[in-house]
Amino acid sequence: MKFEKLNSYIEEKKKIIDSWLLSHLPPPGREPKPIFEAVYYALFPGGKRIRPILAIASCELTDGNIGDVLPIACAIEMIHTYSLIHDDLPCMDDDDLRRGKPTLHKAYNEAIAVLTGDILLTMAFEYMSNIKLYKNPSLPRIVMVINEIARASGKEGMVVGQVADITWEGSSVTEEKINYIHTNKTAKLIEVSVKSGAIMSGASYREVEVLSEYGRLIGLAFQIVDDVLDVTSTSDKIGKKTKKDLSRGKLSYVALHGIENSLKKAKELVERAKEKLAIFEEEKCWMLKDLAEYIVAREK
Amino acid sequence: MKFEKLNSYIEEKKKIIDSWLLSHLPPPGREPKPIFEAVYYALFPGGKRIRPILAIASCELTDGNIGDVLPIACAIEMIHTYSLIHDDLPCMDDDDLRRGKPTLHKAYNEAIAVLTGDILLTMAFEYMSNIKLYKNPSLPRIVMVINEIARASGKEGMVVGQVADITWEGSSVTEEKINYIHTNKTAKLIEVSVKSGAIMSGASYREVEVLSEYGRLIGLAFQIVDDVLDVTSTSDKIGKKTKKDLSRGKLSYVALHGIENSLKKAKELVERAKEKLAIFEEEKCWMLKDLAEYIVAREK
Repeated sequence: MKFEKLNSYIEEKKKIIDSWLLSHLPPPGREPKPIFEAVYYALFPGGKRIRPILAIASCELTDGNIGDVLPIACAIEMIHTYSLIHDDLPCMDDDDLRRGKPTLHKAYNEAIAVLTGDILLTMAFEYMSNIKLYKNPSLPRIVMVINEIARASGKEGMVVGQVADITWEGSSVTEEKINYIHTNKTAKLIEVSVKSGAIMSGASYREVEVLSEYGRLIGLAFQIVDDVLDVTSTSDKIGKKTKKDLSRGKLSYVALHGIENSLKKAKELVERAKEKLAIFEEEKCWMLKDLAEYIVAREK
Repeated sequence: MKFEKLNSYIEEKKKIIDSWLLSHLPPPGREPKPIFEAVYYALFPGGKRIRPILAIASCELTDGNIGDVLPIACAIEMIHTYSLIHDDLPCMDDDDLRRGKPTLHKAYNEAIAVLTGDILLTMAFEYMSNIKLYKNPSLPRIVMVINEIARASGKEGMVVGQVADITWEGSSVTEEKINYIHTNKTAKLIEVSVKSGAIMSGASYREVEVLSEYGRLIGLAFQIVDDVLDVTSTSDKIGKKTKKDLSRGKLSYVALHGIENSLKKAKELVERAKEKLAIFEEEKCWMLKDLAEYIVAREK
């Protein structure tokens, strides 16, 4: 099997991430109900945990301690999860299905969905700024990473990407618009996941730069594959509604270039990403290379 | 006039806050439209700016430099503003009027209202963690304050207070429930505003404790007065819908104790808050004393 080694790496890290979350989140039954129950509903069993795994892998590659990146990695997963909850709201993408189960506003209601997103985003910053949660807390690294993540999730990234995604619906597709949406809505948070892992390990400037570039490239590839899967896959397989880009007039890479050329482009981006890793020893960076390939090969 | 000196203090600080915000926010016309225009719509002309003024006053009282608390003070105003936008949404309190103008989802739409709240919350953490924005950045103080503010805005404060406020609507009023809602929804953010100012100035442990307690007490008084104004004032005067606590079955202090006893309680809390300030010299803490009195005397 092609991704055998990677799959056990992913499973191992997923267990660490889930167990960190479980031991740090308030119990699901905590008052006032049902907010913490909804937090659990959103976070577990969770998706592929790609972003926190990238943060951990990047930290380990640059000889960091996993205990110094875990609060950051799990905070990024919370931010990603909040963004899915708000994106799924009736006033945004109006989706009923996410990760194979009803979206949060369907399982609870819209008010609880808005507030679960809000609390996840706020808790992400609470955990990142809690120095007791790090093995060897370095304040300069923590402050820098919080700033990078806030930028990538907000006005220089995810939120403006989502604004473009919904406000440009139905307008004419251009390379420039697609690139803006993909970069901001998806690639920035993936890039900052990889970058944060390296910053937390105390990696050199060059290493951080290279890993950020790697992250940006696989982030773009990831979103192109998402656009392709929306057309080629089924809800049963990917656990969310498909064929919605076309039906809603969303700007997608596939609409501009077709399926075949989109996959070609994604593979090209992944190749470029892997080349970036040439500064690292092969036996240390294999998981990032395999993760890059996994992103285009994935079927969900 | 009773609050003459305080009013010029407030006006002076309001100018500093507004000018900080104006020089740090992206221009309202920045793409993708209309997100930054909506951010300006929400932040300007703004309300009383009580929270950032409290942060500044507390920093100045403890001999801090305003340049070390401004990013924090303005971030708190952004967090307060985000909470109003999300609270006003149709799925929450469904309000059409805020600060005398249409609420954000009325002026734009619900999707933009959710995203404007999201971007304001995220930008708050971006600004707080940007060390270039401080006159003399102290990393331990910055990380501590970010953590305090995240706790007070999220799972230990504002969000859980809002969850209780909406999910307990229509249930029987008890002292315990009202206290939970007032403490979490309102008092925690006011408390952390005062506390942050003192932490940023490097105040002593005792000073920080005393100022936090002062903040908690005026925060509780503030919310009681809000409950009273909901009954006694008009939309024209306070710029938002009134009589809504009763009509929606919201738990309010007035429903439990009546107007007269509520005002008595608010005054009592303010007196206790002022007593806390006894450890400071009168000529240095007058603004915090006057601010406390202003909170119960205010008519909007």
